[in-house]
Amino acid sequence: MHDLLRQLREPNTTKIVMLVADGLGGLPIEPGGKTELETARTPNLDKLATEGTVGLSLPVAPGITPGSGPGHLGLFGFDPLKHDIGRGVLEALGIGVEVGPNDVAIRGNFCTIDAEGRVSDRRAGRIPTETCEKLVAKLRQGVKVEGVETLIEPVREYRLVVRFRGEGLGDDVSDTDPLATGLPTLEPVAHSQGSERTAKIAAEFLRQAKQVLKDEHPANFLMMRGFAKFPRIATMEEAYGLKAVAIAVYPMYRGLARLVGMTVAEPGKTLSDQIEVARTNWPRFDFFFLHYKYTDSTGEDGNFAKKVEMIEALDAELPKLLALKPDVLIVTGDHSTPSRMKSHSFHPVPTLLWAPATTRPDLVTTFGERPCLSGGLGQFLAKDLMPLALAHALRLQKFGA
Amino acid sequence: MHDLLRQLREPNTTKIVMLVADGLGGLPIEPGGKTELETARTPNLDKLATEGTVGLSLPVAPGITPGSGPGHLGLFGFDPLKHDIGRGVLEALGIGVEVGPNDVAIRGNFCTIDAEGRVSDRRAGRIPTETCEKLVAKLRQGVKVEGVETLIEPVREYRLVVRFRGEGLGDDVSDTDPLATGLPTLEPVAHSQGSERTAKIAAEFLRQAKQVLKDEHPANFLMMRGFAKFPRIATMEEAYGLKAVAIAVYPMYRGLARLVGMTVAEPGKTLSDQIEVARTNWPRFDFFFLHYKYTDSTGEDGNFAKKVEMIEALDAELPKLLALKPDVLIVTGDHSTPSRMKSHSFHPVPTLLWAPATTRPDLVTTFGERPCLSGGLGQFLAKDLMPLALAHALRLQKFGA
Repeated sequence: MHDLLRQLREPNTTKIVMLVADGLGGLPIEPGGKTELETARTPNLDKLATEGTVGLSLPVAPGITPGSGPGHLGLFGFDPLKHDIGRGVLEALGIGVEVGPNDVAIRGNFCTIDAEGRVSDRRAGRIPTETCEKLVAKLRQGVKVEGVETLIEPVREYRLVVRFRGEGLGDDVSDTDPLATGLPTLEPVAHSQGSERTAKIAAEFLRQAKQVLKDEHPANFLMMRGFAKFPRIATMEEAYGLKAVAIAVYPMYRGLARLVGMTVAEPGKTLSDQIEVARTNWPRFDFFFLHYKYTDSTGEDGNFAKKVEMIEALDAELPKLLALKPDVLIVTGDHSTPSRMKSHSFHPVPTLLWAPATTRPDLVTTFGERPCLSGGLGQFLAKDLMPLALAHALRLQKFGA
Repeated sequence: MHDLLRQLREPNTTKIVMLVADGLGGLPIEPGGKTELETARTPNLDKLATEGTVGLSLPVAPGITPGSGPGHLGLFGFDPLKHDIGRGVLEALGIGVEVGPNDVAIRGNFCTIDAEGRVSDRRAGRIPTETCEKLVAKLRQGVKVEGVETLIEPVREYRLVVRFRGEGLGDDVSDTDPLATGLPTLEPVAHSQGSERTAKIAAEFLRQAKQVLKDEHPANFLMMRGFAKFPRIATMEEAYGLKAVAIAVYPMYRGLARLVGMTVAEPGKTLSDQIEVARTNWPRFDFFFLHYKYTDSTGEDGNFAKKVEMIEALDAELPKLLALKPDVLIVTGDHSTPSRMKSHSFHPVPTLLWAPATTRPDLVTTFGERPCLSGGLGQFLAKDLMPLALAHALRLQKFGA
């Protein structure tokens, strides 16, 4: 599909805005009840639904609950089943650590081991973040692995990120976490030839770290998980000819946008700030990715009322976005986060596509999970949304004569 | 899919009619308005929609605007992304020039060049077709390229077709049209080894043609575009066991039907004539492809009212078609041509499948873009329509025990 889009794409000055309300989809709390989105009073979204077309996006495939990585890759038009973003890379991106083609990123956990080297606490008593920072500083000073550039960054509590940078570093290396207490930590083992160097470097890193941490308590060692390289993936410009900018408050989403080559703008703090950033950058870009976290975090908290409120807050900002006169405006989510489930879910995601010059309206006049079922977009794979956006923005030529 | 259909197919005497209203799908002109099809009074289509089932066809993939070639290949059950029909072949088929496996077909344009060989008119003042015919006769007499069989045919006005027949002729050759006036024509250049012979032959052809035409005015040269070989594609009989006939007024659609092995009947001039041709050929064929151009041409003209009228004219002929008692009647389009856009578009195409013995009716009682959204066919890829047609015609056995 990307080859075809490359062939067909046609320069245009049209602007596409993709507003991702993280975890947008929901569930009713009670039988017969409404979802969060259906409950929220959303006059602006309803107007857009009336004038545009709606449907439901399947982030990965039916029944599959996506993490943020696959969820966003799908929205950016890449098949999440074909482009794997390793956990180490996601964790690094999440704290703003850059990951390039010669890097391997790894999630680290501080842990407690006993005198025999057996894990007694896989999370080192959930040490406070400040302790984590101090230990990371100690590791930076005490650990020197030859022939590789090592970066160590604290994340939160017992979690850290390690990044090795150098030639010939594969990521096919097994975790050192035994996944249970009472067992010794594992050695990092390469499962293919191209990763042997990484395994050796990791083993040496861990050997030195054990020395550096041996008198600490409770965090007297660390384990490594999710060895991952930067995925080979086209940029938005390569794939679609779009100059794209990400305006996202949380580092993880800026990182995901960086993966597909978006420019990352300083977002400010609120959606209103983000729209203002879009406004000031309006002439410089073709594609604007705005990320809104609070529909997900309130869902994860199981706070139905608060999620409703966050949806209404989003709705209230839309006139500012529309004042920019985008040619195509998409409002969707990277997955559903029903507050009833307090987690990401597999449910399709309500999606709205508004393009005054080109959308074929359907009969739907409100934005919600059930109205979307009869929308013009039908139920579709998230990866098909970008071709639709490009088509509605008149950025694709005819295929064949 | 074709392998499966070959495995499952079962002889039957049922008749399938596919009526393609070219460019059928449309858009409302005004916000809140109706599309062309929704505006048209179509009592017969509405009755068929009520008794049968409807849906929306995606000719190629979401967001992709198809040309007539891919649009029809999809309807004939072939994935347009896997079967590329080159422009030269389309043009040749359009005027009834046979194209076989050893042929390369090329679109020619008579043009005007100045004393320095620069193109001053890419269409040679749109010379009348009679002049084109005279010049082609002159070329036939004056141009002799060694080692290849050359066929030259006039198309219309300044357009002609050149077909080279011989061994080892690839079609990976660049156009000689510089695409702007004031520039010299280009040499045909082979872009892969298997096409070098074709490029040499074309260069020699052009060298001789320049001599032959040098005293003509305004058409004193020609340019070549769209070098193309016959695509490897199954016939309707091989793929589905159907004896198929094409009843199409415009040569292009007869050519497309010939590509998939349909017999081409003399169509007469009107849809009424075409239905009469279907009637007289009724016992000889299993599958009848009727092509109706005017829903597309009026859309291309941007004439909403005229497109509505053409849809109503089609509707009025349906009783004659129904009098033939087809077992399966499909009414669809190869793509949308909204008069608002004056061009083909990517929007899904309203589709109706009526088969009195086998359709499961839905709740839809009118034929239009929005009603089709709740139809029993849902939104589907055009290439899935032929399996549905075969199934409704009871021409497919059960798969597996």
